[in-house]
Amino acid sequence: MAVYTDVSFEDLEQLLALYDIGMPLSFKGIAEGVENSNFYLQTDRGAFILTLYEKRVADTDLPFFLGLMEHMARRGIACPLPVRTRDGRQLVTLNRRSAAILTFLTGVSLRRPGVAHCAAAGAVLADLHRAGEGFALTRRNALGLAGWRPLAEAIGDADSVEDGLTGLIADSLAEAEARWPGDLPAGVIHADLFPDNVLFMKDDVSGVIDFYFACNDFYAYDLAVMLNSWCFEMDGSYNITKGKALIAAYRGHRPISEAEADALPVLMQGAALRFLLTRTYDWINHDESWLVRPKDPREYSRKLRFHRKVRHAGEYGL
Amino acid sequence: MAVYTDVSFEDLEQLLALYDIGMPLSFKGIAEGVENSNFYLQTDRGAFILTLYEKRVADTDLPFFLGLMEHMARRGIACPLPVRTRDGRQLVTLNRRSAAILTFLTGVSLRRPGVAHCAAAGAVLADLHRAGEGFALTRRNALGLAGWRPLAEAIGDADSVEDGLTGLIADSLAEAEARWPGDLPAGVIHADLFPDNVLFMKDDVSGVIDFYFACNDFYAYDLAVMLNSWCFEMDGSYNITKGKALIAAYRGHRPISEAEADALPVLMQGAALRFLLTRTYDWINHDESWLVRPKDPREYSRKLRFHRKVRHAGEYGL
Repeated sequence: MAVYTDVSFEDLEQLLALYDIGMPLSFKGIAEGVENSNFYLQTDRGAFILTLYEKRVADTDLPFFLGLMEHMARRGIACPLPVRTRDGRQLVTLNRRSAAILTFLTGVSLRRPGVAHCAAAGAVLADLHRAGEGFALTRRNALGLAGWRPLAEAIGDADSVEDGLTGLIADSLAEAEARWPGDLPAGVIHADLFPDNVLFMKDDVSGVIDFYFACNDFYAYDLAVMLNSWCFEMDGSYNITKGKALIAAYRGHRPISEAEADALPVLMQGAALRFLLTRTYDWINHDESWLVRPKDPREYSRKLRFHRKVRHAGEYGL
Repeated sequence: MAVYTDVSFEDLEQLLALYDIGMPLSFKGIAEGVENSNFYLQTDRGAFILTLYEKRVADTDLPFFLGLMEHMARRGIACPLPVRTRDGRQLVTLNRRSAAILTFLTGVSLRRPGVAHCAAAGAVLADLHRAGEGFALTRRNALGLAGWRPLAEAIGDADSVEDGLTGLIADSLAEAEARWPGDLPAGVIHADLFPDNVLFMKDDVSGVIDFYFACNDFYAYDLAVMLNSWCFEMDGSYNITKGKALIAAYRGHRPISEAEADALPVLMQGAALRFLLTRTYDWINHDESWLVRPKDPREYSRKLRFHRKVRHAGEYGL
């Protein structure tokens, strides 16, 4: 959590001349997001987030991310809306970085969401999948099945992180490649809908944020990412009550096909492997200058070991 | 700029039960302050800052800092007001740290304040000195004259930071000790009123923040800290137009005695030495885990060299 690029008030004033969003009242760097520099901006016309995109987000992907948020917001999804400049641009340049101003959403993210929160968030995931239909741009999932083997090779020996981790990764990767479904309902997915990225007001979802991993992939894979991040307890156990609630709420807003249900166990493994791989890579290659503490990969090796014993989707509450 | 201690929404909810400030609408870590962890908190009743005090602020000093802000706010200074719990406490404990909730002030700090800003801020410094009269607690200036020699000794050889820095520190320290005034008007000073710590709305001061170096010392030393941090240009030159404006505005709100005027050159040296010493110490002893980039000490060695050629207060615009 950090601000990588500094923005002075003088920089901000020049920037705001491009927009029609009023006079600045408050401006503060916020400790949010591992990938970008974010600032909270309050004007006499509303609250906004100014984001400067750092090196981990490719400039060529920005039209997809920003266009998607606009598309989603227009279709009723409570997500940040990129504000356009007076001459219609979503993207500007600030301190040599691509930058955008987005509307600020009120609400708080929960570290320990309860059953009702899981259900509310599951329904929003289904809404998001349906709202993404018709979006004109596409983006390959760079962290999907095809991306895992290169990542595993870049990691190499992972046993310094945890005993047996190299073998776990190799076995799970081979199994995912062998069993991955060839065809399932697909479209735009969020791909990172962890509890951090869902804002609540009381028990209702007030916003979905951080679309910077969004891409085209199987909808049911997105559901697997959510079940992995919302339905495990601190002690490592899967909470099937939460799983049932999340899945039932999702189903209430978008049907789950038989093929999707059959694929859920391997998708759960794949989703756990994806976060295990990126966390292990970041753990080993952690650079002190990042100003960010890497997340513990072992949370996901534990989940992955659990999934490798699951035989059918019913064990997840489907 | 960082958040050192994480606070979950669940932690926050428990905390808010102690206060009568409404329901949380938004809660975000903010990248502000080198010393503490700060969070922006919006409720249905207003905007607040939650601060968790990290190890560099001594718990025994907190009643002074928080009491002072309350004293100042009651006397019309636009500064954060510590919110009391339902049972009247300014300080609570959160995640094993002392913590306080303070009112959030609107406004933006300027990196390159103009002449009018220098004047407005100078007037506020004088107001602050007058408002501090009658505050019951006192706090020794730990980073005042008596603290500099131990700090210089802890630094030892500083030539790795800049050629000749060890000698500059030794000479300036000897001179400050020899020439330091024995008696000048004194009271509560802010001791760190850099441009970062003054908020503006257009050209008016909307707030003064960060009282965590406040202490009892000479008022004119506080003025010297301000002249050092507000009136130098990026190219290292002293801007006497800004100095004149700042000093004249200060004088409009609190008279400057002849003794204070005579002492200004050595106070300017002392103030520059104080920031040179702490920055040099932090530069040399910088720990990567701080999540904070140390500030460049050479900004202050340059200022100190300038002051060592000054012969009378008129060169500063007095």
